[in-house]
Amino acid sequence: MARRIIVIGANAAGVEAASAARKKDRAAEITLLTQEKIAGYSRCGLPFVIGGQIPDFKNLIVYPPAYFQMLKLNLKTETKVIAIDVKTKSVTCVDNSGATLTLPYDSLIIATGADAFMPPIKGREKAGIYSLRTIEDGERIRQAVQNGAKSAVIMGAGLIGLETGVALVERGLKVTIVEMLPQILPQMLDADMAKLVQEHLQEKGMVILTGKTVEEFLGEDKVTAIVASGEKIEADLFISAFGVRANTKLAVDAGIPLGESRAIKTNSRMETDVRDVYAVGDCAEAPNIITHKAVCPQLGTIAVREGKVAGANAAGDYSQFTGVLASAVTRLFEIEAGVTGLTENAATRNRIEVVTGAITSKTKADYYPSAKPVRVKLVVEKESQRIIGGQVVGGEEITQRINALSFAIQKQMTVRELAKADTAYAPPLNETWDPLVLAAEMVLMKLR
Amino acid sequence: MARRIIVIGANAAGVEAASAARKKDRAAEITLLTQEKIAGYSRCGLPFVIGGQIPDFKNLIVYPPAYFQMLKLNLKTETKVIAIDVKTKSVTCVDNSGATLTLPYDSLIIATGADAFMPPIKGREKAGIYSLRTIEDGERIRQAVQNGAKSAVIMGAGLIGLETGVALVERGLKVTIVEMLPQILPQMLDADMAKLVQEHLQEKGMVILTGKTVEEFLGEDKVTAIVASGEKIEADLFISAFGVRANTKLAVDAGIPLGESRAIKTNSRMETDVRDVYAVGDCAEAPNIITHKAVCPQLGTIAVREGKVAGANAAGDYSQFTGVLASAVTRLFEIEAGVTGLTENAATRNRIEVVTGAITSKTKADYYPSAKPVRVKLVVEKESQRIIGGQVVGGEEITQRINALSFAIQKQMTVRELAKADTAYAPPLNETWDPLVLAAEMVLMKLR
Repeated sequence: MARRIIVIGANAAGVEAASAARKKDRAAEITLLTQEKIAGYSRCGLPFVIGGQIPDFKNLIVYPPAYFQMLKLNLKTETKVIAIDVKTKSVTCVDNSGATLTLPYDSLIIATGADAFMPPIKGREKAGIYSLRTIEDGERIRQAVQNGAKSAVIMGAGLIGLETGVALVERGLKVTIVEMLPQILPQMLDADMAKLVQEHLQEKGMVILTGKTVEEFLGEDKVTAIVASGEKIEADLFISAFGVRANTKLAVDAGIPLGESRAIKTNSRMETDVRDVYAVGDCAEAPNIITHKAVCPQLGTIAVREGKVAGANAAGDYSQFTGVLASAVTRLFEIEAGVTGLTENAATRNRIEVVTGAITSKTKADYYPSAKPVRVKLVVEKESQRIIGGQVVGGEEITQRINALSFAIQKQMTVRELAKADTAYAPPLNETWDPLVLAAEMVLMKLR
Repeated sequence: MARRIIVIGANAAGVEAASAARKKDRAAEITLLTQEKIAGYSRCGLPFVIGGQIPDFKNLIVYPPAYFQMLKLNLKTETKVIAIDVKTKSVTCVDNSGATLTLPYDSLIIATGADAFMPPIKGREKAGIYSLRTIEDGERIRQAVQNGAKSAVIMGAGLIGLETGVALVERGLKVTIVEMLPQILPQMLDADMAKLVQEHLQEKGMVILTGKTVEEFLGEDKVTAIVASGEKIEADLFISAFGVRANTKLAVDAGIPLGESRAIKTNSRMETDVRDVYAVGDCAEAPNIITHKAVCPQLGTIAVREGKVAGANAAGDYSQFTGVLASAVTRLFEIEAGVTGLTENAATRNRIEVVTGAITSKTKADYYPSAKPVRVKLVVEKESQRIIGGQVVGGEEITQRINALSFAIQKQMTVRELAKADTAYAPPLNETWDPLVLAAEMVLMKLR
């Protein structure tokens, strides 16, 4: 009998898992269940439709229905899974006709993602608070803009908050960002690096209020203002970007254990503590390569990598997930910012003794016109002198600098090795001494 | 008594060496001797002054006289060294007043660079054949353009030939490139990757004739045409870019041995076979990290790295040069091309059995506008499955992709590790699966 594989969720992690399973097992019955109307789209692209760089939300559909047909993947949209039974190995769901179905599986992959998180703030039940997690969310925000919203308050200065803020500024809105912590991008950058990004955003007209707690939503039945650390801020549009929480309810109800990060616990094959049940993407945890601690960084790149591993294993192959560095990058107006490995802050929290070094250099030869500034910060474990983290903020070519550092970290490069590393240069493209190498020199000076 | 350090040559390698020596020994007497009028300039920038991106040749001076004064480096320009005596440890030179001086040294650093090479072609003694190695060369070419040259023939399709060709097209000249080998950039790229660059150059109006040997220079006393594989090609300007040869005459005359690459032989401290005599930059050889064979890649990045090591050692410090991968990159019109490690061709020549994989992907998410194509080729040693070379050709962010691959190679990353590597992504900045990772997948499919 054909192997029955069920995947709950049909975006980055889920589709990648189903595709990997199909690659291994041509005959398996593979079913994807999603409660959304649209499957296989890129959540990361949502802010850019709002900003207008991408014409329509439907452009974000990376895997159209034809893809599922081609790979013979049985996709059921608008189908809500209500229970997993790991003893009988079955999933119960309600489909778009309202019918309740119980589907048996040989392998199950949980890719239920994460949901926007709303803290228990007074008045949060009121209408008019938007979030940006799904295409429907995006459509609602775009509609509000088209209906004439002139100002927006965004609560949370993480990636989604800031990318959405930039999009709204580009649409002509006055945007205020309210962040509880004393810096923007607190999960991503150290305060010294985040400051550069914040200055750029402010130059572009964004109002950024850090260290402010949202205390109340004001307004009759629709929110018209918030109170943040005692200050009343009015706006036409309110977007909650407090962060996301792993969607683990189905797993918990089924007795599938969570790990210390409160996401679903997995082994190196992305299998949960229950045999033949895998978890991937924003609802699953995996070890950080440096700390070995289970984390759930909720990034698209991690989701697809985990999906690929789980899908192969669910179809009888053998594949290991090697852990995460949580490399991430963003572009906000004309500045790019990226991270890989641990920030200084995260290293300290993990009680790792580090030496850091940072330099500001240029993206082209000093004499070449239109060179842009680039700042690199390295985090080095003191005893081994190995690089364990890097942050880069600047005008261009930041993503691949992060990838270069990511490879260095994954291969346990020491800061001495980086200071001597062979790099490429041409006057329109780089400095003779690459900024990464110069940052390594800065660390070495402190280690001597 | 203060340590006396003499450096012959005062561009990338020489100035870096003198600076490193100064850093170690505050009291040393450090003298730089150069026969050029101007010291401390970037040769790599010459084509961009001709192209007009950089207003003047003087902008290329990275180390102005004030730099030498600040570091108390005794710079003697227009001073030609005529002999090195390694027994008495002295250098004899003729200074700009015509006086002959003999200067004693405790440590000597030879950074005599390389000279443009002219094969024994009939008529090569005629006037009107330009090369591009010094500021004076650059000024002559710019003068010829200002005097109304409408067409140019460039002999040699290496980096200097092509970058100069692009500059002249940008100045409105009709440019024909004549290359003896069947492809452009033969030292840098495999034929399949070079083809992409060639197509771009041709689209921009450059005429490229590969597999054509320059047989004769025609014209009375000034060249007016060449004969290339029997075909007569007329032009107003003729530029010899056949390549460069290490300038080793002084060393050879002094009995300092050359290595198998015909550049000056060095050990891991950049010391020659003669104690206290170092050689760095375009005249010196160093081991390739992969083949362990001595090579002389004549790149600015290698020159400064070697200079730094030799300068420190010459001043009594201990520093090692870890070898070269010869990472290099160029931008030609709107295309960028880079290499690190061995090409497939070079690997085969070195009798290394390899598996290669190449893919074409995009520089941004598929749905994000203005994504540019990028092609990655990986060269993997078959037995160890380690990456030993990479080439990238495309529209943007090529330099740092090369650096990422360079770090991977230096840290002996296997192609399996690259296929699972943690990379950074955001829709305006990269694909979810980085092109480097996709190329690794291609190799893995062949290894299975």
